[in-house]
Amino acid sequence: MREGILFIVSGPSGGGKTSLVKEALKTFKNLSFSVSVTTRKPREGEVDGKDYAFVSEAEFREMIKKGKFAEYASVHGHLYGTPLEELENARKSGVDMILDIDIQGARQIKEKYGAGVFCFVLPSSFGILKERLIERGSEKSGDLEKRLSEAKREMEEINNYDYIIINDSFNEAFDCLSAVIKSARCEYSRAAERIGKDYFA
Amino acid sequence: MREGILFIVSGPSGGGKTSLVKEALKTFKNLSFSVSVTTRKPREGEVDGKDYAFVSEAEFREMIKKGKFAEYASVHGHLYGTPLEELENARKSGVDMILDIDIQGARQIKEKYGAGVFCFVLPSSFGILKERLIERGSEKSGDLEKRLSEAKREMEEINNYDYIIINDSFNEAFDCLSAVIKSARCEYSRAAERIGKDYFA
Repeated sequence: MREGILFIVSGPSGGGKTSLVKEALKTFKNLSFSVSVTTRKPREGEVDGKDYAFVSEAEFREMIKKGKFAEYASVHGHLYGTPLEELENARKSGVDMILDIDIQGARQIKEKYGAGVFCFVLPSSFGILKERLIERGSEKSGDLEKRLSEAKREMEEINNYDYIIINDSFNEAFDCLSAVIKSARCEYSRAAERIGKDYFA
Repeated sequence: MREGILFIVSGPSGGGKTSLVKEALKTFKNLSFSVSVTTRKPREGEVDGKDYAFVSEAEFREMIKKGKFAEYASVHGHLYGTPLEELENARKSGVDMILDIDIQGARQIKEKYGAGVFCFVLPSSFGILKERLIERGSEKSGDLEKRLSEAKREMEEINNYDYIIINDSFNEAFDCLSAVIKSARCEYSRAAERIGKDYFA
């Protein structure tokens, strides 16, 4: 059995990574979503261990100390993290995993975990990115400026990624992400074992 | 403008590479087929410069001397070759090219030309490969034995390839080849220029 592949889908807010990852999870077999650990309170309908693993801040800090996270970050005063153990279990059991994660998180995964197929999702122009953030409406004008300047800074990390997915049209972008997932599955290093020494038997 | 990508589709005879390449040429825009040079006579309906470039043996030998080929081989007493210049022109003009080529040819391209996305196409078992060669009917029994032993020897080259495409079902195999073509087009090195310094302009 081959090892599971880790797909990291990242990029600036407003780039559309979350919708792409949701669609991938609906479309592909043998593709799982990593359940993040968080210190924020569950929202209505959220199930512990399914949507998130909800823990106290003390528990989270303890996990950091013990090196339990492949990445973690503080967002709007709450802590969020991806447990290393979950990635490892998926890899060993041959399950492919996909992470929808911000750029700082992706950088940590690259540094601490190493393995993975890194995809950077963004629209073809900064103007479109700005429009998307405005359309969301959830952004107050101060937040918008902050997110845009964050996005500019974060763009410098694009050269650490394996793939760039231009998301102007959802369908075209999803077609790219699908191609990345499918081609990764037939890369030599992963597919070669299907052509083992017993090929001629 | 990005450079053209060279896709090399190879594998043992009977693996089904030719049908996959034909379908890719029908399906993808900006994907061309390299016109081979050959010393064999044109068959009915074949157009010089379109199906093949037909040359004399003396002309072909002259081209070899001048280093004009990315690869060439003698097949059933005729010479066939892929002109280096055609690959270079496609690369420089941003046209992706796909080659349907035997394993020896692919090895020469890898050695002499270097660049390229190398795909090895084969069925999931040697039994299926044998059946396919028998079904073709065109193989005399001596030829069959020869091709099978050739295939066994050639299999050792599989670890020089980037992708392995298991061709038990045409649709599944074509889905893989399509994914390889699409994902290669959104690899960082090729897509990054679309996100140039004028991104924030």
